[in-house]
Amino acid sequence: MHSSPNGPVSETRLEDLSELITEKQTTIWVDVVGPTPEEIARIGEEFHFHPLALEDVARGGQRPKVDQYDDYQFIVFYGLTISADRCQSREVDIFLGKHYMVTFHASDLPAIAQIAERWRANAAKLGNHSVGFLLHSLLDALVDEYFPVLDDIAERSENLEEAIILAGQPTLQAEILRLRRELLLIRRVAGPERDVMNVLIRRDPPLFGSKEMVYFQDLFDHLLRVTDTVDIYRDMLSSVLDANLSMVSYTLNVVVKRLTSYSIILMSISIIAGIYGMNFVYMPELDWRWGYPFALGLMVAIATAEVGIFRRIGWL
Amino acid sequence: MHSSPNGPVSETRLEDLSELITEKQTTIWVDVVGPTPEEIARIGEEFHFHPLALEDVARGGQRPKVDQYDDYQFIVFYGLTISADRCQSREVDIFLGKHYMVTFHASDLPAIAQIAERWRANAAKLGNHSVGFLLHSLLDALVDEYFPVLDDIAERSENLEEAIILAGQPTLQAEILRLRRELLLIRRVAGPERDVMNVLIRRDPPLFGSKEMVYFQDLFDHLLRVTDTVDIYRDMLSSVLDANLSMVSYTLNVVVKRLTSYSIILMSISIIAGIYGMNFVYMPELDWRWGYPFALGLMVAIATAEVGIFRRIGWL
Amino acid sequence: MHSSPNGPVSETRLEDLSELITEKQTTIWVDVVGPTPEEIARIGEEFHFHPLALEDVARGGQRPKVDQYDDYQFIVFYGLTISADRCQSREVDIFLGKHYMVTFHASDLPAIAQIAERWRANAAKLGNHSVGFLLHSLLDALVDEYFPVLDDIAERSENLEEAIILAGQPTLQAEILRLRRELLLIRRVAGPERDVMNVLIRRDPPLFGSKEMVYFQDLFDHLLRVTDTVDIYRDMLSSVLDANLSMVSYTLNVVVKRLTSYSIILMSISIIAGIYGMNFVYMPELDWRWGYPFALGLMVAIATAEVGIFRRIGWL
Amino acid sequence: MHSSPNGPVSETRLEDLSELITEKQTTIWVDVVGPTPEEIARIGEEFHFHPLALEDVARGGQRPKVDQYDDYQFIVFYGLTISADRCQSREVDIFLGKHYMVTFHASDLPAIAQIAERWRANAAKLGNHSVGFLLHSLLDALVDEYFPVLDDIAERSENLEEAIILAGQPTLQAEILRLRRELLLIRRVAGPERDVMNVLIRRDPPLFGSKEMVYFQDLFDHLLRVTDTVDIYRDMLSSVLDANLSMVSYTLNVVVKRLTSYSIILMSISIIAGIYGMNFVYMPELDWRWGYPFALGLMVAIATAEVGIFRRIGWL
Amino acid sequence: MHSSPNGPVSETRLEDLSELITEKQTTIWVDVVGPTPEEIARIGEEFHFHPLALEDVARGGQRPKVDQYDDYQFIVFYGLTISADRCQSREVDIFLGKHYMVTFHASDLPAIAQIAERWRANAAKLGNHSVGFLLHSLLDALVDEYFPVLDDIAERSENLEEAIILAGQPTLQAEILRLRRELLLIRRVAGPERDVMNVLIRRDPPLFGSKEMVYFQDLFDHLLRVTDTVDIYRDMLSSVLDANLSMVSYTLNVVVKRLTSYSIILMSISIIAGIYGMNFVYMPELDWRWGYPFALGLMVAIATAEVGIFRRIGWL
Repeated sequence: MHSSPNGPVSETRLEDLSELITEKQTTIWVDVVGPTPEEIARIGEEFHFHPLALEDVARGGQRPKVDQYDDYQFIVFYGLTISADRCQSREVDIFLGKHYMVTFHASDLPAIAQIAERWRANAAKLGNHSVGFLLHSLLDALVDEYFPVLDDIAERSENLEEAIILAGQPTLQAEILRLRRELLLIRRVAGPERDVMNVLIRRDPPLFGSKEMVYFQDLFDHLLRVTDTVDIYRDMLSSVLDANLSMVSYTLNVVVKRLTSYSIILMSISIIAGIYGMNFVYMPELDWRWGYPFALGLMVAIATAEVGIFRRIGWL
Repeated sequence: MHSSPNGPVSETRLEDLSELITEKQTTIWVDVVGPTPEEIARIGEEFHFHPLALEDVARGGQRPKVDQYDDYQFIVFYGLTISADRCQSREVDIFLGKHYMVTFHASDLPAIAQIAERWRANAAKLGNHSVGFLLHSLLDALVDEYFPVLDDIAERSENLEEAIILAGQPTLQAEILRLRRELLLIRRVAGPERDVMNVLIRRDPPLFGSKEMVYFQDLFDHLLRVTDTVDIYRDMLSSVLDANLSMVSYTLNVVVKRLTSYSIILMSISIIAGIYGMNFVYMPELDWRWGYPFALGLMVAIATAEVGIFRRIGWL
Repeated sequence: MHSSPNGPVSETRLEDLSELITEKQTTIWVDVVGPTPEEIARIGEEFHFHPLALEDVARGGQRPKVDQYDDYQFIVFYGLTISADRCQSREVDIFLGKHYMVTFHASDLPAIAQIAERWRANAAKLGNHSVGFLLHSLLDALVDEYFPVLDDIAERSENLEEAIILAGQPTLQAEILRLRRELLLIRRVAGPERDVMNVLIRRDPPLFGSKEMVYFQDLFDHLLRVTDTVDIYRDMLSSVLDANLSMVSYTLNVVVKRLTSYSIILMSISIIAGIYGMNFVYMPELDWRWGYPFALGLMVAIATAEVGIFRRIGWL
Repeated sequence: MHSSPNGPVSETRLEDLSELITEKQTTIWVDVVGPTPEEIARIGEEFHFHPLALEDVARGGQRPKVDQYDDYQFIVFYGLTISADRCQSREVDIFLGKHYMVTFHASDLPAIAQIAERWRANAAKLGNHSVGFLLHSLLDALVDEYFPVLDDIAERSENLEEAIILAGQPTLQAEILRLRRELLLIRRVAGPERDVMNVLIRRDPPLFGSKEMVYFQDLFDHLLRVTDTVDIYRDMLSSVLDANLSMVSYTLNVVVKRLTSYSIILMSISIIAGIYGMNFVYMPELDWRWGYPFALGLMVAIATAEVGIFRRIGWL
Repeated sequence: MHSSPNGPVSETRLEDLSELITEKQTTIWVDVVGPTPEEIARIGEEFHFHPLALEDVARGGQRPKVDQYDDYQFIVFYGLTISADRCQSREVDIFLGKHYMVTFHASDLPAIAQIAERWRANAAKLGNHSVGFLLHSLLDALVDEYFPVLDDIAERSENLEEAIILAGQPTLQAEILRLRRELLLIRRVAGPERDVMNVLIRRDPPLFGSKEMVYFQDLFDHLLRVTDTVDIYRDMLSSVLDANLSMVSYTLNVVVKRLTSYSIILMSISIIAGIYGMNFVYMPELDWRWGYPFALGLMVAIATAEVGIFRRIGWL
């Protein structure tokens, strides 16, 4: 856990928290990674957080939302990480007071580490920045993580479209389902987050000054772009699924044509053999000197002719 | 039937009800399980409930809703139970007055039993709690029952996605339809319940104090999560249905390729037999000492070659 | 035609109408079954109805709606009847004034007959009831007719789901389309009727007193339930349609596997016959005493083995 | 071109227009068929129309809309005509001032001709009618043209449902696509027109008196009916498309069953012939006096038995 | 880079910009093509643009939007170009002040070139035109580029519908997917642009005078037409995709019927050969003088008969 009093950032122990909170003129950021229930309870008590909000933090799995309490906001937001080619959402629970921000998350998040780093480096320069700017830089870093994931999906989705010619491969099928699941995951997170942003912007009286508002408006636009893009790709993927089905059926046509063509050729050859296997007394060809080669030649000739015909009508 | 005057909870007889109601300073909870029409009428008379609301209780099958009457609310809500792997919805009809809550339901519900238990245990401590807290704890317990059902559906839905490789099994098909039916059942209940919650929260003048409002807002968020999740899984299931169709068609491709390949091999063998069954006078092979084994060898050779070819192009 | 002055209901002749209308203190209900254009014109003149509304009555086929005129409402509503297993909608056109209700419909409707009966029986008791209660009891009776139709559809829809195992029967297909058509019919009626009810409830200044409003709110809830249910079943039916397609494809897989298996068995037998039909000079089996039974036995053995194999891999 | 001063309708020359416009107490209707760019410019100048609106007239292909200018409305509306079984939309551009209406359209429209006729015939009687009534009668006539088109589509759509049993005929497919295209055409016109009507009705201050408003409300209802109906049929057609696909697949099942059954029968016969074509020395049947007829009889018997079996399991 | 002071348009160097800006009575247009980060920063500094907006310009890929800043608007809009049969969107970033417009875009755009040309030519005449007219002519030119693209898509979409008879060609499939992707691209741009236009029109206090408002209303209508058209074609294309699948399946039916018919014919011929290949001692035909031709004739007769039958039932 590291907290960031708005002087030089310092790693603070839990015990010194109460002291820090009372200093109203500095901006405090308390970031808690993988908290135990006891720590949550302890910090909640210190800041007088509502039991319901603390329960949400402890349980996790909340929908992105903003709950307004008397003198602070409780915000649930998500970051995205890709590990081992699987995209996962990571919950960040944020308490935003007038002079402090408290964040809880289960494990280290690159976005938060990076913000903390910047905050630490520029502590002096950021000194006169409000808690609103702090919140913005956090949410901005989280949302920025969505775009590489979307780009990745875009690329895989386009590959799928090209691979559609390899109709009906089970792996392709599985890939479509997987992509769809990831898009739904992002949709499920980004949709409510857009609403959260809308609430933060439109709240009356306004939460932040007009200078900060511009930045939150910008974030709102980013989230609109995310949900737009997700909807576009969901639409594309369902077309791809349909197109894949058509391709599978088309491939069946091709296979049936080809195989049945071969059957017909083989059956034709078989008929020639059958004919010269008949036991009629009077069958002139049977007594010919070159009867046998003639029959074999006939078989080859018929087969060749049929191959030609089937080729011309596009079945072979 | 047990009623809970806001002193120590006590099992009260129907006859004593009128007496209890007059005590305005205590919170009363009357819970009626599997009421007969007469009991409904009797209690309705005692509390002066509107005939329309009583008719709804007697008939059942109502849509989740909140009807506002002069000095009480009539709320219809649903719990979910899973029995024998089938998810079922259980109606709870709630009359909420200033100082009392009356609940009707057809059979025992775990959620209600548990609330009653807690209420009984903490009667003294809860003594100064309002009827709003009572309502919240009831609805909260009912909604909490949704999540294990959803988790169950989530698990079965993911199993389905993996089982898709066993394309087109009728049981799989039936499972998808069953899951879909359950999701629609939950959707049908949770959607209007979300609206009920919205009405309870936004009513002007407010029904409850701001302290209680926070809890109802929390319930509202839970119901949003339920409907979100249901929509996600409906979407996934319809993809799974589509993917399943593609897999069935793909499987047909595989089957057709394999079976027709075998046919072609057998027909090729048959042709060799046919050729040496021809009755030409001059067929040198027929007189060979090893002609017969040669022919059999030829058959094996051709079959082996064809198996090789079909394997290489992926049809066997 | 029977009109119901709010004393004892009496069958009134068209001629006496003008007289009745002038009595402002009684509630009059004029119910016209299968009116001729002249009767419509005549009654319209008597009550000073707007030509547009009268034209709607004469033409029929209107969308459910409520049109507000200076001192009366023109309401179009529908009942449902099932005859010969086909569900049909029946238009009822209603003029609602301060002291009268005039209804037009093409043929006798059970719902209206029943209301008239009740009205007649209780005329004295209902004497002080307003025209609002009369309208409510009429619309309520009409909407109550929807539920048995929906129950019927629900039952047939569930039967369909079970019948899906009989994949692809044309009758099944037709049944799905028929059910869908009926659902659309109900949707088309119930959706706008819900809006009508909304207009009646929310109109400002209110059309009816708060005592009557409760009843219309109840009707509104019923219509919500109807549209909810219709949407659920439309959704289910489209899944059933999709599932049916999968089942048809799956059945094709089964058929192809089975039939081609038989082909392969027959071809194998044929090859044995072909081999012993070859004319090689040196074929030891041909001269065996038990060669012929041996060949037949070989055929049976191979066929049996193949049946076994195909059974084990699930193709027979 | 004919203009209709609100005295007796008279065919007026373009030159006299300026004179007519100045008479404020009469209602003028100028109807221009197939105007040249010069005529549009000329008339536009006369009435002081905005260049943007005139450009819309000249270009055509506008979306139905109503644009409000200082002292007139510019309305784009569409009629429908069926010619050679193809439904086509015809644009009518309307300028509506306080005392005049100017209409532009590319070719003669039955609806407009009919209105002009009625206007001419009743000029005296209509003398005191406002421009609002004129607009209403025009739009009403245009919208009335939609219903026969919809009825035609309804009939063809129901025919399609019955024809579905002739699964997969390419003509059927094409017909579905054609119907869908026509529905989309109507939807594209009727949807925005409904909005136009809404704007005309709700405009504040109101465009027309309350007496005229009733008529526009009626038109609005008609357009609601049109869009409702279109949506119903689009829904039905997409079901029909799905059902058709199922039927095609089902038909394939039937075909495969039948054809493969015949193959199996023929192969069985072939095996008998193959057996008696074997060259075993000891084959008693070969020496029987009635061996040959016996073999043929055996073939017939086996074929008959198989036909019986396939019939019983429903494959033939 | 060329800037257009509202005297004669002149190519201005970046250095002279500061001077120009101070002249409040002229309208300045600064158009920057393919700016370097430094140029963006430089110009941004000159005009005091907000860092967030400048970052959007530098990064690109923004969603169409309008952001309001204290004394200017930041607008993101898109043009469309077709090159090598692929439709591409080109971002244009616009800063709109009271007396100036600054535009940034990555490469030359025909629409902008054309506006600049017109502006230059008519500089004197346009002298007293406001910055609103300048913005309108720019956006109008951009939106006008959408219609040829849509017409192109319309034509290709109709070709697709006709080509559907060539069921299941992979190229057709790919073309459908490509068209869909392009429609989604346009939808993604035109949808938010419609909202931008709405914001520009409805802003309170109004951004432009009522004379200019008419033109923006007109642009709004154009964008409505674009989104309408895109939605219609998306709908049509998804029908085409479905219809294509049906056609592929139908084609399979045809192929299976035809090929299996041929198989049956060949098998029938084969059976005749098989029969006369049997080794019965007493087979009268074998000793006939014309037995062999008789057998061949029998084969031809049976084959002809079968061809006839299959033709009559429509399988050949």
